[in-house]
Amino acid sequence: MEAYLDNAATTRCYEEVADIVRKTMLEDYGNPSAMHRRGVEAEQYLKDSAAAIARILKVKEKEIFFTSGGTESNNWAIFGTAAANRRRGKRIITSAVEHAAVARPMAVLEEMGFEIIRLKTTKEGVVDPEELKAALTKDTVLVSVMMVNNEIGSIEPVAEIGSYIREHYPETMFHVDAIQAFGKLRIYPKRMKIDLLSVSGHKIHGPKGVGFLYIDERAKLSPIIYGGGQQNGMRSGTDNVPGIAGLGVAAARMCASMEENAEHMYQLKERLAEGLLGLGDVTIHGPSDLRKGAPHVLNASIIGIRAEVLLHTLEDRNIYVSSGSACSSHHRNGSATMLAIGASLPERESSVRFSFSELTKEEEIDYALENLREVVPMLRRYTRH
Amino acid sequence: MEAYLDNAATTRCYEEVADIVRKTMLEDYGNPSAMHRRGVEAEQYLKDSAAAIARILKVKEKEIFFTSGGTESNNWAIFGTAAANRRRGKRIITSAVEHAAVARPMAVLEEMGFEIIRLKTTKEGVVDPEELKAALTKDTVLVSVMMVNNEIGSIEPVAEIGSYIREHYPETMFHVDAIQAFGKLRIYPKRMKIDLLSVSGHKIHGPKGVGFLYIDERAKLSPIIYGGGQQNGMRSGTDNVPGIAGLGVAAARMCASMEENAEHMYQLKERLAEGLLGLGDVTIHGPSDLRKGAPHVLNASIIGIRAEVLLHTLEDRNIYVSSGSACSSHHRNGSATMLAIGASLPERESSVRFSFSELTKEEEIDYALENLREVVPMLRRYTRH
Repeated sequence: MEAYLDNAATTRCYEEVADIVRKTMLEDYGNPSAMHRRGVEAEQYLKDSAAAIARILKVKEKEIFFTSGGTESNNWAIFGTAAANRRRGKRIITSAVEHAAVARPMAVLEEMGFEIIRLKTTKEGVVDPEELKAALTKDTVLVSVMMVNNEIGSIEPVAEIGSYIREHYPETMFHVDAIQAFGKLRIYPKRMKIDLLSVSGHKIHGPKGVGFLYIDERAKLSPIIYGGGQQNGMRSGTDNVPGIAGLGVAAARMCASMEENAEHMYQLKERLAEGLLGLGDVTIHGPSDLRKGAPHVLNASIIGIRAEVLLHTLEDRNIYVSSGSACSSHHRNGSATMLAIGASLPERESSVRFSFSELTKEEEIDYALENLREVVPMLRRYTRH
Repeated sequence: MEAYLDNAATTRCYEEVADIVRKTMLEDYGNPSAMHRRGVEAEQYLKDSAAAIARILKVKEKEIFFTSGGTESNNWAIFGTAAANRRRGKRIITSAVEHAAVARPMAVLEEMGFEIIRLKTTKEGVVDPEELKAALTKDTVLVSVMMVNNEIGSIEPVAEIGSYIREHYPETMFHVDAIQAFGKLRIYPKRMKIDLLSVSGHKIHGPKGVGFLYIDERAKLSPIIYGGGQQNGMRSGTDNVPGIAGLGVAAARMCASMEENAEHMYQLKERLAEGLLGLGDVTIHGPSDLRKGAPHVLNASIIGIRAEVLLHTLEDRNIYVSSGSACSSHHRNGSATMLAIGASLPERESSVRFSFSELTKEEEIDYALENLREVVPMLRRYTRH
């Protein structure tokens, strides 16, 4: 038995994603910039993928720009907006719980002289729109707030934020890191007044090394990678046809049954939460109403057991979980999110993230719980002596 | 019959590349930053790929940094060096025949106040090292010269340039765009005194959407993409395990039989050149000694026939060639390389690139020639009446 409960770190590709990747590597392998049929064939995969994604988001195909992944999308949104709008102002607002792919570019801009405002959150990890409203000024060029927190699954009020910004500061761009949200929550950038939206392929059973940035046609943004002029001059480099084709297939499949998938994951989450609380001395982070958080993330502190110790103990039993965000597990600075929500040191040291996908089975949860019931008392005894 | 003679635009993946991509998408799909076994397994693919590439180049594994492709590698080398060394100087030297992925970042730096010197070339497309030596100054932070020109296959004297720079201006960084050279010519950055070297996966039967930048450990370079701190903090974003694994497999296979492959391609090139010259009123661009150019590129002007017309006529017969560089075929500004080598307007308008790979068969060349003998007189008659 195996329980892969680290789907917020990365997901297994769908079989049909692997199939289209193989086909575009061995058969339709042309360069989409080539003028001959081999090129046109390859270009069709790009168009199909953009069309599939545009349908899901209810936006225009030409507003979808493919990147090498969520991190590039976030970097582009932030650096590209800063570069294109620097004459308008140097103030940027973000939250204290962003992923490193947003937080680090912000820190780089700060060193370059930009003023970065970081909004605090509630204990459940949610930004207060009132605080944002107070921080907004005319010379704010960008607001960047994630949709779903990658560590604790809290959902930010992006629609409320977007509407407020568009109404009162229409020149301020609103970027949303939707890397953990896409495929789990319905996202409509036009309705939510989101100008820039980052998505990653490998979080939605698509390929690693590909993602996209939705750019509202009204947005002013400089490229960050220059060259042959692909993607309307906005993102140069030979288009990653296999990756982009795979991303389109993954997005279409995932979003076709989003509500059923979410219901399935909420049930897993509730089942796991109940089991974890039964272990005693466990804190669950994020929204106390589990259904107010993302369906696929459950973060819990099993007090008294260091997260790494639990992680490796579970690993020996083929149960895979994460301590903090996998994307920054090589960093040992501690989690900004856990600090922002006011978690105590014992909570921070013992915080483990369990994350699901539509492919996760109830048996995996039960297997994980069964093992936790066995190892947790053992490890606690060991720690406390 | 089909003749795919556009291998400088992109190549078909090796079967074993497609196999390892599939395996890492469906089986070993972990996030290499994850601390559990699924992560460690995935990380091993990155290490194996870096090791394979380091062996080929005779450099250290930790000097190989994976990117989303050749364009990102070039952008990173240029912008990263400019950012990290801007206090030392703002002078950069490059050539007039660089690919857009070098030429465009240079133009962006020029707008930002950098002084960009563009070296002219001979009629064969080769930079004169003496001109470079005269242009070098103490405040030159970067020299960027490609190894093989993508349009006409000329080979630049990078070893001579590298030695001169290192001896006289050891603080000046030397970047080489080796995207068309890797796998066709032996490249040893340490011996050639190259500090930064860009390579792309899809030009060597590897995946699209992946490449690497070799960074000599002595080089000072800022990242251009920030986030979770992957690749020693130099290039953030979840590592593209399938792409990177595929790149390593492709590089190893291609370089294992590089000399035999080159000999095979030179024979194809000579066979095609002879046939083309037999058509009459044909100019072959690049080194007149075909073996002094790259083995896989032959650029010829079939005077009197517009390249696009010939391209589409051949396409109807399943023969795929390129007019100018595929990577910039969406740009109609004309080729900087063709201007730099002093090609006449009739030559520029009729210039077609034929490009081969180790997989190209002699029959494909014969099939192309057979058809050219049929269509060229016909098209010329049509044009001239």
